[in-house]
Amino acid sequence: MTERILVNQLAARPDGPVVVSGWVETVRDQKKVQFIILRDETGAVQLVNPATRPDPEAEQDAAALALTDAISNLAHGTFLTVTGQLKHDERVKLGGIEIKIGALQIAAAALPETPIAADSSMDKRMDWRFLDLRQRRNNLIFRVSTTLEHAMRQYWVDRDYVELHTPKLMSSPSESNAELFALPYFEDKTAYLAQSPQHYKQMAQAAGFGKIFEIGDVFRADPSFTSRHATEFTSVDAEISWIDSHEDVAAMQEELLAAAIQAVKDKHGQEIAELFGVEVTVPTLPFPRIPLVEAHEIVKARGYEIPRTDGDLDPEGERQISAHVQETYGHQFVFITDYHPEIRPFYHMVDPATGLTKSYDLLFNGVEITTGAQREHRIEVLEQQALAKGLKLDGLAHYLDFFRYGMPPHGGFGMGLARVLMLLLGEASIREVTFLFRGPTRLAP
Amino acid sequence: MTERILVNQLAARPDGPVVVSGWVETVRDQKKVQFIILRDETGAVQLVNPATRPDPEAEQDAAALALTDAISNLAHGTFLTVTGQLKHDERVKLGGIEIKIGALQIAAAALPETPIAADSSMDKRMDWRFLDLRQRRNNLIFRVSTTLEHAMRQYWVDRDYVELHTPKLMSSPSESNAELFALPYFEDKTAYLAQSPQHYKQMAQAAGFGKIFEIGDVFRADPSFTSRHATEFTSVDAEISWIDSHEDVAAMQEELLAAAIQAVKDKHGQEIAELFGVEVTVPTLPFPRIPLVEAHEIVKARGYEIPRTDGDLDPEGERQISAHVQETYGHQFVFITDYHPEIRPFYHMVDPATGLTKSYDLLFNGVEITTGAQREHRIEVLEQQALAKGLKLDGLAHYLDFFRYGMPPHGGFGMGLARVLMLLLGEASIREVTFLFRGPTRLAP
Repeated sequence: MTERILVNQLAARPDGPVVVSGWVETVRDQKKVQFIILRDETGAVQLVNPATRPDPEAEQDAAALALTDAISNLAHGTFLTVTGQLKHDERVKLGGIEIKIGALQIAAAALPETPIAADSSMDKRMDWRFLDLRQRRNNLIFRVSTTLEHAMRQYWVDRDYVELHTPKLMSSPSESNAELFALPYFEDKTAYLAQSPQHYKQMAQAAGFGKIFEIGDVFRADPSFTSRHATEFTSVDAEISWIDSHEDVAAMQEELLAAAIQAVKDKHGQEIAELFGVEVTVPTLPFPRIPLVEAHEIVKARGYEIPRTDGDLDPEGERQISAHVQETYGHQFVFITDYHPEIRPFYHMVDPATGLTKSYDLLFNGVEITTGAQREHRIEVLEQQALAKGLKLDGLAHYLDFFRYGMPPHGGFGMGLARVLMLLLGEASIREVTFLFRGPTRLAP
Repeated sequence: MTERILVNQLAARPDGPVVVSGWVETVRDQKKVQFIILRDETGAVQLVNPATRPDPEAEQDAAALALTDAISNLAHGTFLTVTGQLKHDERVKLGGIEIKIGALQIAAAALPETPIAADSSMDKRMDWRFLDLRQRRNNLIFRVSTTLEHAMRQYWVDRDYVELHTPKLMSSPSESNAELFALPYFEDKTAYLAQSPQHYKQMAQAAGFGKIFEIGDVFRADPSFTSRHATEFTSVDAEISWIDSHEDVAAMQEELLAAAIQAVKDKHGQEIAELFGVEVTVPTLPFPRIPLVEAHEIVKARGYEIPRTDGDLDPEGERQISAHVQETYGHQFVFITDYHPEIRPFYHMVDPATGLTKSYDLLFNGVEITTGAQREHRIEVLEQQALAKGLKLDGLAHYLDFFRYGMPPHGGFGMGLARVLMLLLGEASIREVTFLFRGPTRLAP
């Protein structure tokens, strides 16, 4: 391995020889002195070279001439390794250190014209996502994501959850017949891409796994162009047995999120504040809960009339509720509970006392990030609920079989990873926080 | 949440009232006494009930009669919750404890006829995988998998790797045009399912991410029916910048595997020995390395003639080499190195000194689990190598663009999670260690 020193470790080292590797962020090619700002995944450092310009009248060092010439010709983005002398110098604005270049070895030179700039349109930036991701704030997004995910997994592993990888190729739709990608499979069969791991995380309950989680890809042939939708996204899912109601799921999810956001704040809080202007807030427990009917009253009292007639909230309604919760409880999260079965999937359990589902949506800073529920585990009731939605039991045959040989009461949630990241960092679109976004008109690079 | 006590925590509790939940593994319905073996995700416990049989001549307790009757009618697999009195009793073979049943609440009754038994054919067991997974050893497989994965992620997170979720929907093949699933996308486009995250983990190097990993699904329209192939599987991938050769990748991977297997041994070693008859061995570092040419000589000297003519090893050759390594070095792992470019993808770097690729395969107990390599990062060389393989640069346009604006030297590996689990547990097929296997004739449940 090249014995390079990461840029963020230079300040702690004494003056002397060092090797650094990274890419050229800028070159200042002055007549007498040349500066390179070199960036790696941990930071940026200034490199300096006293220029040796050709002078027919002087005796000159060929190597020094060549080095000066090489630096003059460096394109932004070129990856290189520099051997040089580290010097601490308070006058250097960038971290108070500088490296005097000894030798410079180009790994791969960049074309001289960079196709995008930091202020290019989002679509153009997505065309050249690998260059866009060189920005420090974009790099930070994925370090935050890594920390967030790892903290969630740690929470679950500490509590003996089993991590699953459920199949994405299925013989029948996992959620609904809408927004479904289909593909030819072997022997003239048709396969469908999983819209969620719903069937299989429930299957794990029938298998007696008790508590499971999965962080994996799901697919929706969704023609939307909103800031919150994608045709492929990372879904964070959990499912647990022996619950009394959706409240047990909500209690787990709020603890999970508090632990994960705490980990992000501890590791990246300062850098997030610097690069995103956002103070990471660890949510207090429990999160506020508001029944859907009450939510409607609150939104109405704030002067907003929800246009949809099915009883669900719309995006502006969600923003209004979150604003209310922020003003009233100083909280960024709120569980909306007690949805009518008409606006929920057939597999949500209905509370006989109210006729409403034992389910919730979780809003974070005005956007829905989760649906959670207790599932109906009694096969007779489940079949009735499916039929009441106009579904054909044939298409659900494999799923329904899971319930015929014993099933514990259970429930869980699914959460969009990109939505959580977007809202945590105050970004405007999930496109900004997805490594490579996929949408109806976006399948490359 | 139901205040159930997990079965593996009962032994440490004093005699007295307890609540347990799980499924019925067996019922022994004797005339005077009834026994239920109840299993949950942590173990099994014996429940006992002194039977009250109808006797027209005696005055009898209706509740006691009903309880006895309910137990007599319990089907295997039924999930239930039992409230009762825990009693420590050395005479009870199953853990020295017993619960006298007070009340019994059925969550969901199983149909009386279970469609499979532990000795059913693999195909039949896969039809009813959720029942098959109730077996203790099958449950353990996924707990081992959880520990293995978490330990790998911990290794990477401790070293500042970034976790990625690369897209599985692509506009062009990620590896080759063979074994490719294609599907209609929006606006008459065709999408391909990723065969590996190869393109994108390299893109992350161009993006300056430095070190990345991904554990995610990949897809191969592979018509094979071997014990090692699937049409969808979980791939463990890593990619790192600023390497000198594939040796830097191999050094990381062997450390990673040693750490992960150590974690499995620590947490599950005893149970694996009991249920799989396998002693988990933490591999010593470094793993043995054998150049491919030498491997051929070793196999030949052992009396096996490899039938394939392209110079690669075949499955029997791999077993022979692993047997040799086990006999010679007492090691379960071996890196086979120095493959000829003809049997490697175009993006492997060629060592000009030897004309061979800077790549390796890693064998574990006789089966290939990984290909690793330094990648060619110089665009001119990369294009030449692609053309030499007969590839059209058009189809690789997005991938090749990643190399035009600067790229560090880099390399990585891809590893099949199910293969590692299969070999670690001494199982005969990846089907046994995959939650839901997918193959040419297997798309459900």
